[in-house]
Amino acid sequence: MSYADRWLLPDGVDEILPAAAEQIESLRRQLVDLYHRWGYDLVIPPMIEYTDSLLVGLGSDIDLLTFRLTDQLSGRMMGLRADMTPQIARMDAHSFRREGISRLCYTGHVIHAKPKNPLASRTPIQAGIELYGEAGIEADIEVVSLLLESLQTAGLPSLNIDLGHVGIFRALSESVSFSTEQERQLFDLLQQKSTKDIDAWVEANVTDTESAKWFFALAGLAGDASVLQRARDVFDQAPAEVIAAIDELEVMASVISQRYPQAKLYFDLSELRGYHYHTGVVFAAFSPGHGEAIANGGRYDHIGEVFGHARPATGFSIALTTLHQLLSVEYQPKPAIFAASTEDPKQWLAIQALRSQGERVVCGLADQALVISESLCDRQLVLEEGEYCVKPLNKN
Amino acid sequence: MSYADRWLLPDGVDEILPAAAEQIESLRRQLVDLYHRWGYDLVIPPMIEYTDSLLVGLGSDIDLLTFRLTDQLSGRMMGLRADMTPQIARMDAHSFRREGISRLCYTGHVIHAKPKNPLASRTPIQAGIELYGEAGIEADIEVVSLLLESLQTAGLPSLNIDLGHVGIFRALSESVSFSTEQERQLFDLLQQKSTKDIDAWVEANVTDTESAKWFFALAGLAGDASVLQRARDVFDQAPAEVIAAIDELEVMASVISQRYPQAKLYFDLSELRGYHYHTGVVFAAFSPGHGEAIANGGRYDHIGEVFGHARPATGFSIALTTLHQLLSVEYQPKPAIFAASTEDPKQWLAIQALRSQGERVVCGLADQALVISESLCDRQLVLEEGEYCVKPLNKN
Repeated sequence: MSYADRWLLPDGVDEILPAAAEQIESLRRQLVDLYHRWGYDLVIPPMIEYTDSLLVGLGSDIDLLTFRLTDQLSGRMMGLRADMTPQIARMDAHSFRREGISRLCYTGHVIHAKPKNPLASRTPIQAGIELYGEAGIEADIEVVSLLLESLQTAGLPSLNIDLGHVGIFRALSESVSFSTEQERQLFDLLQQKSTKDIDAWVEANVTDTESAKWFFALAGLAGDASVLQRARDVFDQAPAEVIAAIDELEVMASVISQRYPQAKLYFDLSELRGYHYHTGVVFAAFSPGHGEAIANGGRYDHIGEVFGHARPATGFSIALTTLHQLLSVEYQPKPAIFAASTEDPKQWLAIQALRSQGERVVCGLADQALVISESLCDRQLVLEEGEYCVKPLNKN
Repeated sequence: MSYADRWLLPDGVDEILPAAAEQIESLRRQLVDLYHRWGYDLVIPPMIEYTDSLLVGLGSDIDLLTFRLTDQLSGRMMGLRADMTPQIARMDAHSFRREGISRLCYTGHVIHAKPKNPLASRTPIQAGIELYGEAGIEADIEVVSLLLESLQTAGLPSLNIDLGHVGIFRALSESVSFSTEQERQLFDLLQQKSTKDIDAWVEANVTDTESAKWFFALAGLAGDASVLQRARDVFDQAPAEVIAAIDELEVMASVISQRYPQAKLYFDLSELRGYHYHTGVVFAAFSPGHGEAIANGGRYDHIGEVFGHARPATGFSIALTTLHQLLSVEYQPKPAIFAASTEDPKQWLAIQALRSQGERVVCGLADQALVISESLCDRQLVLEEGEYCVKPLNKN
């Protein structure tokens, strides 16, 4: 292979150069600090684990995204983490084994064997939080509030949240006793949001007129807060779980609108993203004109069960790399001070003193002219009357 | 599989819980900030790359440490990064293509298919720097200074650096025209530091008496700065490159001792760690009583060649997880303020005001008693005469 090929990165695999890296590092710190102030403790899950732990109860989406490796030590199958949520759930269920509330946050790379969509990165950097131990809507409200706070802290110009509740589809499916296959078929049609196909399928599969009405209406229940009232009308004869789900969305919308009046809330009651592992309120953050979600989250009360410690759970993850692309923050590198090469130990002390004051000081090595021309120095360290002092740098 | 197995992590794979995670995050920030002040720009290399890029010119050590994956998109072989240095070299050679000096730093997980030693982590977190474009010893001195500064910033109680120079063994081997196989054999014996075997091998393979004297002496040239004078005596008839290497070590020792008088410098002229990719000064940081190196580094002038842009290069990487274990810093979690659950929007404003002042505020959810007993709150937010104020929390 020629060296021309050697620097090619695989499709969807990104390296991040200084300007972007510094901004992503700054975002990362702002979010970890924010989560700390809200009571969330940082944990660092491993990059690799046995697939038996990594792929529990998450459905086929994560399964397809996960790279497999054989552990040379144990011979068992391992996976590269494609999602940190099951890892944090394992830590909550096993390593803490708390009975009360547990608030955890994380940040780092996840790796996808295939991109989630043709333009998506296969090595996104995520930051996220998980709240364990509280089944009530207060927990979901805290989590959605913290998502909005994250986007606001990052400086995203507009806050757009899609809200849904997988409990609605789940309860409706149960009430008409769909087979697993029927549930899967309707689920797929709802994901495609193809009204014609949904109507045809419902006519063929749901005999009861009242129930059929629910499924005909479901895909259309999307829009602003008025959706919730329309849903109450449609579902007035539906199972109590459906009404309870609408109540939860209504409480959430009311509190969130009060706390973040600038946020635009969009409801979609047929939104089933992450249906296989979510159990209640689900949500996503978008930016106008950008198809890919910036963040996803929701309630997933059953993951801990496979680790022997079932816990109510809700949380979200933000794609930091996507968020960074959507921020129109100009990169302003910190101007540095140039110190020409010398063997004077006093110069070293002067350089170290400046650095300890937070200044960026770049030392000239053998060929200092190159350093001056390329670096972002705007000042230099010069010796005047036996003392080192900082003077403006004249660039030629 | 029972859930009892599901939370088992593979051998040598670690999850990091809050106290340690917060300390490692703090170390990470301190080091990235330090590197910034010294003029090093942060880059974020990808977790996966084609092995053609990842395993260039690094010798068999890295090859054995690297997990392989097949890219489902291209069918080509990819690897999980086991070392970030070749990635940074690729970025310098290709993505920047600067002719002048380039200073880059990085931090993140690396993954090892096998542990480097039986007790080593397979998922260490590293931080490191690379300096490109300067072949002179000034660059190596800057890099070793920055390593010492890193360890000092982290709060490591004692600074111990091993210094070597692979140019010595390389020049001696060339001068006696060893075959590749002979060089490999002697290299292996020197790694094992088995004097008896070395002596026997030299007697059998080196006929010239003067040259044989060099190889007999090499393994014994280890200790404090007096080693350099002993080496000058032994190698007085050796090739000029050997003398030049000793000169480089002497200049480095002199500047480093002046800058960091508390650092203990140990010389080992037969130390060939990373011989396959290093070309000049090599060094490692140790802690007394801890076998594994905290940091490794050295000069590697040829890696860029495979990317079509040969550049002088020197740098180091620190194992942050190892460094953290060696620090005896007690974890002092920041005490938080507890805010009981209420629907009063005024309480929300009070909470947000406290958080924006940097306070950690934990909100009670439905079952607040559990939160109080478990959390690290030492104060609470209470409503007195219509105003929210912070009061000490009485724990029962």
